Amino acid sequence: MNATTPTLLYQHLADDVASMIASGTLRPGDKLPSLREMRTRRQVSLTTVTEAFRVLEDRGLIEARPQSGFYVRRRPPLPLPAQSSPSPEPSLVSVNALLWRYMRIAHAGTFGCAVPAAELFPGAQLQKLTSEALRRHSHLLSDYGKPAGLDSLRRQIARRALGWGGRLAVDDIIVTNGCIEALSLCLRAVAQAGDVVAIESPTYFGVLQLLESHGVKALEIPTHPVSGVSLEALELATRHGQVKACLLTPNFSNPLGSLMPEANKRALVEMLAERNIPLIEDDIYGEFHFGRERPLPAKAFDTCGNVLYCSSFTKMISPGLRVGWVCGGRYQAKLEVLKYINSFTTPALMQQVVAQFLESGFDRHIRRLRRSGGAGN
Amino acid sequence: MNATTPTLLYQHLADDVASMIASGTLRPGDKLPSLREMRTRRQVSLTTVTEAFRVLEDRGLIEARPQSGFYVRRRPPLPLPAQSSPSPEPSLVSVNALLWRYMRIAHAGTFGCAVPAAELFPGAQLQKLTSEALRRHSHLLSDYGKPAGLDSLRRQIARRALGWGGRLAVDDIIVTNGCIEALSLCLRAVAQAGDVVAIESPTYFGVLQLLESHGVKALEIPTHPVSGVSLEALELATRHGQVKACLLTPNFSNPLGSLMPEANKRALVEMLAERNIPLIEDDIYGEFHFGRERPLPAKAFDTCGNVLYCSSFTKMISPGLRVGWVCGGRYQAKLEVLKYINSFTTPALMQQVVAQFLESGFDRHIRRLRRSGGAGN
Repeated sequence: MNATTPTLLYQHLADDVASMIASGTLRPGDKLPSLREMRTRRQVSLTTVTEAFRVLEDRGLIEARPQSGFYVRRRPPLPLPAQSSPSPEPSLVSVNALLWRYMRIAHAGTFGCAVPAAELFPGAQLQKLTSEALRRHSHLLSDYGKPAGLDSLRRQIARRALGWGGRLAVDDIIVTNGCIEALSLCLRAVAQAGDVVAIESPTYFGVLQLLESHGVKALEIPTHPVSGVSLEALELATRHGQVKACLLTPNFSNPLGSLMPEANKRALVEMLAERNIPLIEDDIYGEFHFGRERPLPAKAFDTCGNVLYCSSFTKMISPGLRVGWVCGGRYQAKLEVLKYINSFTTPALMQQVVAQFLESGFDRHIRRLRRSGGAGN
Repeated sequence: MNATTPTLLYQHLADDVASMIASGTLRPGDKLPSLREMRTRRQVSLTTVTEAFRVLEDRGLIEARPQSGFYVRRRPPLPLPAQSSPSPEPSLVSVNALLWRYMRIAHAGTFGCAVPAAELFPGAQLQKLTSEALRRHSHLLSDYGKPAGLDSLRRQIARRALGWGGRLAVDDIIVTNGCIEALSLCLRAVAQAGDVVAIESPTYFGVLQLLESHGVKALEIPTHPVSGVSLEALELATRHGQVKACLLTPNFSNPLGSLMPEANKRALVEMLAERNIPLIEDDIYGEFHFGRERPLPAKAFDTCGNVLYCSSFTKMISPGLRVGWVCGGRYQAKLEVLKYINSFTTPALMQQVVAQFLESGFDRHIRRLRRSGGAGN
């Protein structure tokens, strides 16, 4: 889990390259020195250079071309907004009336939901897998199944979690009706009406609706478009025990798209664990990285079960499946009951289709999705 | 909606026949006088006799044999329990820890959930319909769809509601992940943590879990195994504004199986509307009647949108589909937002399968299910 990442060095290197691009010293299409050249010139380790390039890729400043090297991207990104400076007071959320008016006009899926275009989903494959699942597992339509979900799917999820350093067992996972049910259950598990929950500012409007519908107060934390939520501000805000929980998206939060550096994630997880403040992590965009390595979620640094990790296949495979999941850490037992009483089970056929797609086809599909830059349109 | 049902007469007649059976004057297998004979002997209207026989059928005392008439049932029912007499004080519910321990041992579907046996579900038909839906509506897997549900399904539900006197439009219906999500959303729409909600005593353990998970207090109302929740007790309990909402199952409540007489349902709905106390009605068993006519739900008497009507196809068609619905009355807009934020949408493929089954096959299937007495095992 990158315990020895030399944080400052790679950040410095990335910043240097970024400022050369900003000043026009490096122009769109220019080739960057190779990893080895860079290592020699800067007298740093290869890891440091790799990490710096990854940060630059994630910021959309450079791109890798197979068998060739790294290049400055041709279409320079738009200027970054400044770090947000929301009110330092927690307040009840009230967005639903306004949002709902617009949602009813727009089609549900088109209002800032950050879903890949429909043609990028593997429609034909899913159709085939569904027919197969029906034929081979005809009981899937007539059984309730386990509230926590199909073992076959939970096993696949646990296996894939190895990719981000997650050591999960089948029973650590509860399958949900999309990520939104996972987040909703987590919020119910850790906070009651009137409690204060810290969130990024700005955040996804669905998070605001969630807080409103549960009657909890939002404390907006300043958030930077590159590094994500401000740890300093969060440290201050959580100092006096008022904050009951945090609900954050460290990987590519919507709408800013910021990716929290790994050292920050580690610091975040440690600080919240020390203060006994659970972190609900929304990692729905974790697989949509531009760089070569999947960014670690905060959950990867969780040693005491304080992180409730939520994700979904909605944006990765297909919205119509409505299959998400949660790893509840030390709230797992509570979440199981809440899932049971919130919707009993998730449709087993949809779960089986996802399980089979994860077993065959998912990796190729997600690579294609990444290349297309389909996320975030 | 039976505005002129002569309540007392049919009740008297039914009670007379019941006591003749209890005393052995009428024995198992004995044929009852025909409707017309009965009318002449008792000097009452044909409606009164019909209604009395319906009540006796619902109590399991007599049965109709096609082209022959009514007979005293061969297997006399077990003696009825007395009306419950719970504590008159509202209290926080705390059943989850205990229940969950047992649920984890037993398979989820077998713990008093009142589901028909698996072989009574139309497995092959559903499989065929699912394959067809996949072929014809391939977008169902890749679209989010509307949060309120597929129009095709909502239209079928609205049409069928005519059978119980419901005048529903497509937009009056929200499709949910089973009845449990419908009930959960309703509870969130009408009550907050700490509020008092009146329920039947005894009630389905899922209702208790629901109340516990929302932190509301339960006020248990005495309930009779034949006539259901006591209107007198409920009248008293709701007199001083403490009760924020009622959550009741007027048709075949679980575990008692009591069927509230229609006049009581009407009185219930009127009283609660007058006192501005919303009624969450769980009508999941409404279609499982022994008699010839589907008992009306309380919703049939609702003139001002005070009844939030919940039901599901889980027990009627198949548990694995996870398709339920709610008609929220004057809480409809609030419920739409809550559904959106609780699970966004219900899997569209499952909805389409139910819609197609309702269009063809459902009526025959539900008649077969009724004949088998499959409910309640």
